[in-house]
Amino acid sequence: MRTVDLIHRKRDGEELAPEEIQYLIDGYTRGEIPDYQLSAFLMATYFSGMSDREVSVMTESMVNSGSIVDLSSIPGTKVDKHSTGGVGDKTSLIAAPIAASAGVVVPMISGRALGHTGGTLDKLESIPGFRTDLTIDQFRGLLAEHQLAFIGQTPEITPADGKLYALRDATATVESIALIATSIMSKKVAESLDALVLDVKVGSGAFMKKQVDARRLAQMMVGIGRRLDKRVQALITDMNQPLGYAVGNALEVMEVSQTLQNAGPADLTRLSLELAARMIFLGKIAKTMEEAREVAQSKLLDGSGYRKFKDIIAAQGGNPQVLDRFDLLPNATGAQEITTSRGGYVSGIDAQLIGQASSMIGAGRNTKDDSIDPAVGVILEVKVGQKIEAGSILCRIYYTGEEHLAEAADLVEDAFKISQHPVEERELILEVVS
Amino acid sequence: MRTVDLIHRKRDGEELAPEEIQYLIDGYTRGEIPDYQLSAFLMATYFSGMSDREVSVMTESMVNSGSIVDLSSIPGTKVDKHSTGGVGDKTSLIAAPIAASAGVVVPMISGRALGHTGGTLDKLESIPGFRTDLTIDQFRGLLAEHQLAFIGQTPEITPADGKLYALRDATATVESIALIATSIMSKKVAESLDALVLDVKVGSGAFMKKQVDARRLAQMMVGIGRRLDKRVQALITDMNQPLGYAVGNALEVMEVSQTLQNAGPADLTRLSLELAARMIFLGKIAKTMEEAREVAQSKLLDGSGYRKFKDIIAAQGGNPQVLDRFDLLPNATGAQEITTSRGGYVSGIDAQLIGQASSMIGAGRNTKDDSIDPAVGVILEVKVGQKIEAGSILCRIYYTGEEHLAEAADLVEDAFKISQHPVEERELILEVVS
Repeated sequence: MRTVDLIHRKRDGEELAPEEIQYLIDGYTRGEIPDYQLSAFLMATYFSGMSDREVSVMTESMVNSGSIVDLSSIPGTKVDKHSTGGVGDKTSLIAAPIAASAGVVVPMISGRALGHTGGTLDKLESIPGFRTDLTIDQFRGLLAEHQLAFIGQTPEITPADGKLYALRDATATVESIALIATSIMSKKVAESLDALVLDVKVGSGAFMKKQVDARRLAQMMVGIGRRLDKRVQALITDMNQPLGYAVGNALEVMEVSQTLQNAGPADLTRLSLELAARMIFLGKIAKTMEEAREVAQSKLLDGSGYRKFKDIIAAQGGNPQVLDRFDLLPNATGAQEITTSRGGYVSGIDAQLIGQASSMIGAGRNTKDDSIDPAVGVILEVKVGQKIEAGSILCRIYYTGEEHLAEAADLVEDAFKISQHPVEERELILEVVS
Repeated sequence: MRTVDLIHRKRDGEELAPEEIQYLIDGYTRGEIPDYQLSAFLMATYFSGMSDREVSVMTESMVNSGSIVDLSSIPGTKVDKHSTGGVGDKTSLIAAPIAASAGVVVPMISGRALGHTGGTLDKLESIPGFRTDLTIDQFRGLLAEHQLAFIGQTPEITPADGKLYALRDATATVESIALIATSIMSKKVAESLDALVLDVKVGSGAFMKKQVDARRLAQMMVGIGRRLDKRVQALITDMNQPLGYAVGNALEVMEVSQTLQNAGPADLTRLSLELAARMIFLGKIAKTMEEAREVAQSKLLDGSGYRKFKDIIAAQGGNPQVLDRFDLLPNATGAQEITTSRGGYVSGIDAQLIGQASSMIGAGRNTKDDSIDPAVGVILEVKVGQKIEAGSILCRIYYTGEEHLAEAADLVEDAFKISQHPVEERELILEVVS
């Protein structure tokens, strides 16, 4: 088998055989296939795409490049939830405790903020004392006791993914749907899950700008799941405006606390409950989605989810009191109001611009090595569809330093679109792929 | 400027600015841009193509990566001829001496056989003593004295091309029309020519299988010439059957000798004269193409071209007597006849298969480091359109060893298509692009 022939055939739109995909991934991970050949293969894949069989084999090869997190000693059905990344998306911190409190085992391996999107690990680490650098043994111990634990990616899990991602990042091949699907699914399959709920974001603040692309990505990941014997369901959800009101790490933890006490934003509550319900359904706690939705709702209303989150904060070294006393969380030192000069209806809030502004003042990172300021971010005062008067406050920027503040304020101002006519509300959950 | 952004934009089909193309080629040649980024750029270029401005700037950047052969001390108009590579294509050895004998200065920098196509240098080196590894000073000396000299590519000329070609070869990006055009034109521009005649081959035995691709390549190279102030004309010619009868290095030199004595195959003679006439026209020896054709014809008929070739063979260390006494050339030790079992009309002779068979028994090379057997090859006994009887000889394979002989014979047999109906003759010169 010659690597150049495989590149050639992928370039010409052919489907590669399972052993050929395996040869490429194994050879690359072992350092036998050079970067320059694999990057040409990745670019050919960007243009030619991959079949469902190809992405499944590629996912499996990536999983086999490292070790698998063995959770067989823990009783119960293991279900994780993964989002393709959005702005203000803190649903993991709400849906996971609700599902775990209903009896689902939720081994949550999460990522960090990059670019304009946030990361679950960074949000959790804004809680003083919270540790996500657990050993696999500690992770298993927490899951056995609490049905829930949060951990970061470890280098032993799918090293091929880390190597491939770095190469994609340097060669403009990140945006390939096939490569995104294999990257996400390899990490999830390596957790030895039984089932997975995916939240595929679409819109200005998401990787996928078009619904047709989001659908293809969702279908591909569900298909990989089917071939690798994992039950997978995917929601396609709107990311044309931030989810909830809060964007920024500690600010989002505050909103999580409110939402787990049933006092959160309507959109965030609705999506978190739907995700939790699907985890509960796939976790075999409920027989129908209807029943699962009722279970999720009751676990929110009776405070079980809230208490579960407090338990796991304490178990991972954090101070659970932060959920009641927000002054115990990192707090910004200044706030700048962004107002509107004219009245009307809010017709759009560009999530990407809000995410960029928030990242710019320290809530996110541009490169993996940047550090995060947990206190800063943006809190919206309005959402799309709302009627506003001239002079109304659109949002507040919370900051700890004034560097980049003016620039961030400009971005935020540009994010809001005001119309003279009432606007139709957007659907939040656009499609279900299963 | 970030390399990844340039890859991204080329991937998305954008035209890059001149300084961006320059940055990529300069950076890559100097080793500042890694192979893995350039290979992704090349694959993106394969899919997205390049504008005429982009290929011109890329050609210039490649020329500037090395030194230019300064021919300003030699009086006269310098015109080279280049073929994109075919099977049995020995026109350079006929057209160049004819044009030089008419007063055109022909600095011919040629290539070697690769894959199923032959190389001018290998053909010349089948002449005992003939040396092509001249210094640039020797090259200039020969040009001043004989108006003609043959030399190989030197490492000082467009090192970027050598580096890029090796990368393309390993990453399935050789077939990009834009990259083929820049590779050819950079080497020609570095010769400081005044004009160039291109022979773009199309058909089964050529790189370009479709006339539309050949036309695009021809137009692109003519366009590069225009932007870089070189007059360039291109013929698009048929390569669905080998040119002439002989395929193989010494065998082709014999056919060159016959053709220069006006006793060669009709197709080879016709194309060589047309190429020579265009060189004479662009070389300003004749005012019109009609006049140029007359000059070329007369230089063939009065033996001037033949004598010029003998002169340059002697000047480059070879024995000019080989043109009269073929036993002085390397000769095969065995010959195998390929006959047809049924009569009819020859409707096709697949040039690629003939080239592969010839290469397989030693006339060509699969990798740059393979050595060549100058004696071996194939001599056709028939051409497309000819009526044949059952039992007729189609061709003879000339060999020096029997390894691969049976395999080569199978390929050659497959190459001939016999029809029961008379077939229309194909046009040899399909188009002129200027």
